[in-house]
Amino acid sequence: MTMNDDQFLKDLGLDLELHRRIFDALDRNFQRTVLARPDRPARMDYFDGVIRGAHGERVREIAARRAAGDKLVGTFCIYVPEEIVLALGAIPVALCGGTSASIPYAEKMLPRDICPLVKSTLGLALSNTCPYGPIEDLAVGETTCDAKKKTWDILSKGGDFHVLEVPQKKGARDRDLWHEEILQFRARLEGLTGWTLEPDKLSQAVRLMNRKRRALARLNAFRKEDNPPLSGLDALVVMQGALIDDTLRFTEKLEALNVELEDRVRCGVGVAGRQARRIMVSGCPSVMGNWKLHALVESAGAVVVCDETCTGSRYYENPVEETGGGLDVQLAAVADRYLKIECSCFSPNDERLESVTRLAREHRADGVIQYVLQYCHTYNIEAVAVAAALKEAGVPSLKIVTDYAEEDTGQLRLRVDAFFEGLGRRESAP
Amino acid sequence: MTMNDDQFLKDLGLDLELHRRIFDALDRNFQRTVLARPDRPARMDYFDGVIRGAHGERVREIAARRAAGDKLVGTFCIYVPEEIVLALGAIPVALCGGTSASIPYAEKMLPRDICPLVKSTLGLALSNTCPYGPIEDLAVGETTCDAKKKTWDILSKGGDFHVLEVPQKKGARDRDLWHEEILQFRARLEGLTGWTLEPDKLSQAVRLMNRKRRALARLNAFRKEDNPPLSGLDALVVMQGALIDDTLRFTEKLEALNVELEDRVRCGVGVAGRQARRIMVSGCPSVMGNWKLHALVESAGAVVVCDETCTGSRYYENPVEETGGGLDVQLAAVADRYLKIECSCFSPNDERLESVTRLAREHRADGVIQYVLQYCHTYNIEAVAVAAALKEAGVPSLKIVTDYAEEDTGQLRLRVDAFFEGLGRRESAP
Repeated sequence: MTMNDDQFLKDLGLDLELHRRIFDALDRNFQRTVLARPDRPARMDYFDGVIRGAHGERVREIAARRAAGDKLVGTFCIYVPEEIVLALGAIPVALCGGTSASIPYAEKMLPRDICPLVKSTLGLALSNTCPYGPIEDLAVGETTCDAKKKTWDILSKGGDFHVLEVPQKKGARDRDLWHEEILQFRARLEGLTGWTLEPDKLSQAVRLMNRKRRALARLNAFRKEDNPPLSGLDALVVMQGALIDDTLRFTEKLEALNVELEDRVRCGVGVAGRQARRIMVSGCPSVMGNWKLHALVESAGAVVVCDETCTGSRYYENPVEETGGGLDVQLAAVADRYLKIECSCFSPNDERLESVTRLAREHRADGVIQYVLQYCHTYNIEAVAVAAALKEAGVPSLKIVTDYAEEDTGQLRLRVDAFFEGLGRRESAP
Repeated sequence: MTMNDDQFLKDLGLDLELHRRIFDALDRNFQRTVLARPDRPARMDYFDGVIRGAHGERVREIAARRAAGDKLVGTFCIYVPEEIVLALGAIPVALCGGTSASIPYAEKMLPRDICPLVKSTLGLALSNTCPYGPIEDLAVGETTCDAKKKTWDILSKGGDFHVLEVPQKKGARDRDLWHEEILQFRARLEGLTGWTLEPDKLSQAVRLMNRKRRALARLNAFRKEDNPPLSGLDALVVMQGALIDDTLRFTEKLEALNVELEDRVRCGVGVAGRQARRIMVSGCPSVMGNWKLHALVESAGAVVVCDETCTGSRYYENPVEETGGGLDVQLAAVADRYLKIECSCFSPNDERLESVTRLAREHRADGVIQYVLQYCHTYNIEAVAVAAALKEAGVPSLKIVTDYAEEDTGQLRLRVDAFFEGLGRRESAP
């Protein structure tokens, strides 16, 4: 944050003092948990800057684009089809809160016993410290969980809010409903931007997003290495950046990072000894500001080798089919891609059980930590089935339910250490 | 419970000792909170018997009908269209748990921080103490909340389980989806019963259910009286019975009770002094075994004059249109009726805000208690909007979040007393 940023944020009408307090806390946390780690790839520099510029440079950049007529679309979930947003020249930015500092401002209105992500998000809005609030042209919520769905009821009273109905099963009629939601979303965005969606532009956006997801998949493939060239924390920072940064620039920078990672693999440079335990994280997302679980696991000497989360595989798997055939066909392909996401909001959700065991196998995880944000009923209950599926696959798992606070870190550390002990010592590779 | 019942339940394979412990606790609670109340209408006798026979006589009756070929359909929500169940000769019985005694058995599997209704229900099943478990031919869940939806994922692994997808908005596409769900439910029930749904039988079932809902509405209309002829606890007992008892017999007995209530009104016999505060309860259901809030409110000298809950207006309002035109038209009418239910699972749910203020006005409530079962995110968050709507209508409200345990009764009593003080003293009627 610079003085320059200060004046800019003040001009946006933010509560500057409070914003500074919240963002400084977040930045100190980032320095301590991420930047202080040894042996980081040099090209992580860029992604560190994305995080640190999220409440400064990136806001200014978007404000400048808005001055030129582009629209900002705030999102809270990876079900929002970025392809359509991009094809209409608008800017998608995820607005989920990952900081505990804003939670008290949400609890003035919301019950305490809902998930920290929802409270942190609403708290940023209610405390006038989210710099995207004053410049967003439309916010897009969805119906993936009770807490978010009902919070949107409150927020959407202000207009400029669109709620996508994500269905709860994956039958033919659900697919119809979701396709219709995508069409309505397109209409809403066309109204917002004043543009009509064109097949070429959509193709272009689909190709760009596929390129982005491919680059993310490649990054994550490096985590399958015996000695992964990047830590789970760094992979998480990249994923968090993916939800905030300009799509094309992010993708190019990520492709450059992947080249560096390939070099590191070739030269045998990694972040974990071959005896470090390989841990997969599965469940709830860790959005910007929230590095708690990954820091805990990696400071205990393990390495997070995969994230089966919304800030992980659920975001980068399944490209959109690059099809011609006109807008209807293209939009159907977009809709189909998003319905493949294996959110725990679906009933049943057996595909997710298969993905969890497949990813654990592909990344050769010694154990899985099921990460549940407190009061997230869907991941919390689905954890029963996930644990059973992992057990059957011979992979030990531990469920951790926590929020964004630091108070339980000591206790969690004890549990994580005990879990690692139970995994036994990894055999030395030949 | 009789010795006879004991042998019968044992033959069903129940854990008899545990069942006795749970059911005895429930019955003692019933005696203390309901049966001990003064000035009860004589014809409440029958409904008391429905509650007390729920784990005995009613089970035997259903077992006898099953021996003759009829099927038992267990339900967990008022979205299950009883008209279709009845028209196919099957027996709908609500299986929701209202006792804290079974909760520990659910917590062996489920997280603790989900709602007591779900835990109590699952606990009865897992502890082998639900007498309907061994004799139910199909259980029907739905997707109205995260906790239930994901619990059905676990329970439905056993087969004999059907999940109705209740949509989350009320648009045209949602109506299509819901109609399709109704058709699939019909097909499932046809498969189960071996019968084909006939228009005449469906008409007959619709008329019977409408008659039942009309009788319940009439019962509830008596609660608008200055000095209501029945307590909120008794109204609740009737509603709880409505979800368990044989439909026709229940309706006839209720019509007889209504005649008695009319007499009481004519003779000026009521359960509350004219100065008693009139309280409406709004929010979560109170199913059999759970008389906690109503007992609390009425033992504090107030009278509950309306329930805007699933064990209240959401069950008895909106008859099904009695239409001809063939099965498609009839089934559409059934589907439409159920989509009118104003569950907090819908987003937005403005119709509910109108109903709450309308019911408070019609029943001349001095205040509304928003009743939220702990960890029920949807009613808990929607309470913000409900409180605002009530405030605008000039009706004070208090939100109470609680579970089935007795431990917080003292604290709740203090809050309820304080709320009543704040309402001021009712003016004496002329």
